[in-house]
Amino acid sequence: MTHTENTRVAVNGYGVIGKRVAAAVAAQDDMTLAGVADVATDWRVAVARAKGYPLFGATLEHVRAMTEAGLDPAGSLDDLLGAADVVVDCTPKKVAAGNVERYRERGIKFIVQGGEKHAVTGHSFTAENNYDTALGRQSTRVVSCNTTSTVRTLSALKQAGLLKKARGVLIRRATDPWESHLGGIMNTLVPEADIPSHQGPDAQTVDPELDVVTMAVKAPETLSHLHYWTVQLTREASKDEVLGALRASSRIAFIRMADGLVALNSVKELMADLGRPHDNLYEVAVWEDMLTVQGDEAFYAYMVDNQAIVIPETIDAIRALTEIEADGATSIEKTNEALGITGRLVPEPVAA
Amino acid sequence: MTHTENTRVAVNGYGVIGKRVAAAVAAQDDMTLAGVADVATDWRVAVARAKGYPLFGATLEHVRAMTEAGLDPAGSLDDLLGAADVVVDCTPKKVAAGNVERYRERGIKFIVQGGEKHAVTGHSFTAENNYDTALGRQSTRVVSCNTTSTVRTLSALKQAGLLKKARGVLIRRATDPWESHLGGIMNTLVPEADIPSHQGPDAQTVDPELDVVTMAVKAPETLSHLHYWTVQLTREASKDEVLGALRASSRIAFIRMADGLVALNSVKELMADLGRPHDNLYEVAVWEDMLTVQGDEAFYAYMVDNQAIVIPETIDAIRALTEIEADGATSIEKTNEALGITGRLVPEPVAA
Repeated sequence: MTHTENTRVAVNGYGVIGKRVAAAVAAQDDMTLAGVADVATDWRVAVARAKGYPLFGATLEHVRAMTEAGLDPAGSLDDLLGAADVVVDCTPKKVAAGNVERYRERGIKFIVQGGEKHAVTGHSFTAENNYDTALGRQSTRVVSCNTTSTVRTLSALKQAGLLKKARGVLIRRATDPWESHLGGIMNTLVPEADIPSHQGPDAQTVDPELDVVTMAVKAPETLSHLHYWTVQLTREASKDEVLGALRASSRIAFIRMADGLVALNSVKELMADLGRPHDNLYEVAVWEDMLTVQGDEAFYAYMVDNQAIVIPETIDAIRALTEIEADGATSIEKTNEALGITGRLVPEPVAA
Repeated sequence: MTHTENTRVAVNGYGVIGKRVAAAVAAQDDMTLAGVADVATDWRVAVARAKGYPLFGATLEHVRAMTEAGLDPAGSLDDLLGAADVVVDCTPKKVAAGNVERYRERGIKFIVQGGEKHAVTGHSFTAENNYDTALGRQSTRVVSCNTTSTVRTLSALKQAGLLKKARGVLIRRATDPWESHLGGIMNTLVPEADIPSHQGPDAQTVDPELDVVTMAVKAPETLSHLHYWTVQLTREASKDEVLGALRASSRIAFIRMADGLVALNSVKELMADLGRPHDNLYEVAVWEDMLTVQGDEAFYAYMVDNQAIVIPETIDAIRALTEIEADGATSIEKTNEALGITGRLVPEPVAA
């Protein structure tokens, strides 16, 4: 496929998700980034412009402001939508809801993020679960970071015939690093008022068969979420069987306390050392040595990079909606290859 | 009982636990604080001295240093032990192990804290569970804060015939407030390497029948621990039944999100507003409105003040070892009365 035949992708909203989606789209050989639209005129979009991304103002007023700021915008969001085959909406929750009507009127394919309700698109996406049913649709919703990780891991256990039910405690990061100056909780823990928290039911929008209950609590840190799970298996199993089931997903990677990966910060530092953009951890990082199986129960914990985990899913969702790739497994493989997702995080030792 | 007939209690180690034990002993009408022993000569012991607590140096050297600091020590630890019927050891873990030999040689009754192993005393204590078997013993171990809360809550469910098994995630405070300048984790979460974490097996030192598995993680806050539990009940039950079972323990108190008690810090502020010394939360504070029952499973979260929860247990342990009170329920009632433990935390509304 030559460059001009590539699927043209618009990214609306250049925040923590939008900037990562834009970079990931630019890294694929079957997509072209048509441009990014935003309302900001500061350093955030200056960097986008410097990367050579065509920049669009959300409205004509934003176009004017961008012009005044010397950002050389290529037009407005309308222009961007006119030049794209699919738009990934990465705007804040309330803004996204309004955009959806606009996408529908135009008839452009669109992807919303997990902050939106399932009903907005009627389809909730994770690549390993339902790529097929997203093929050719006008829209889908890439489920949230917490839900993505829940579905990835529980689906892996389910596919191995091991999953009966799962009960999880989700310790959530207080805020994203880039906006932590705006405030966040300090020196306390804030439980979510409702049990179950919304993530369990949300996982069921992808797979209604999952028997899952979640409880959530906010912690004073910005690095990632951390999930603890108690899983009732269908039968007694060995630790190796459970590890084997999880290993079957290319987007679950094992980490080990014994390797010095003892906390969220050490895993993030590893991502930086690997040279990943924004220190992205796209995988669900499961502590292999911590995982314990007692009879017919499995206990484990994993780390979820709330800013990064949905990025590969979004790339696959683009391929599914636009049908540039009919096979989910092939799309996942392409995405993984482009983003450096290899199934392992600590590099293999060099042979002696 | 007149003052001179009171049981004489020595407190060895005047740290976060020792200072609270000393104050709680002083608040009982059937005990007299024989004194506190420590190694410090700074503001910490100056306050103890100002409260009128007889002050003792851990060694003759410490006595000299206290004298030089104008603290007017009453003697050494040996003198204190000679003037007491029972000693509560509140020294750091490694120091306590050495002290135990000394207590044994002297034949003085002693209580160690949960940091010590069960084998040190051969008896692990929580007042509601095994006051009877501690009666007249030379020693017992008051189990740790996390274990105390686990045993209190699970025993309440067990006694109502509702407990089959319990799986908990324990989010631990990083360090105690008074020593947070010495360092603690920041902006990360640190999982405990082993599943199960030690608290589950430790709860079984009190009640070997408990089917309990715990996972633990350290969070960057200093206020308290926070536990999340998934409990498999013996049968389908209503939320009211589960609440009723927990309510049977006088040392479990309900709090409600709906009352504005939405996080650890708001509960600690309530303790301060109530005028409790050191803002002590002696009770296991269970979020009543968050607690959820689905079929035969209960889900709930509670707060554990790691510095305060073992204090009432320690007072009861003193009565059990010294046999000044043969009945556990009576001792618990006395302790509760003296410490202001009433079964509720938010004061009852004044009748119109």
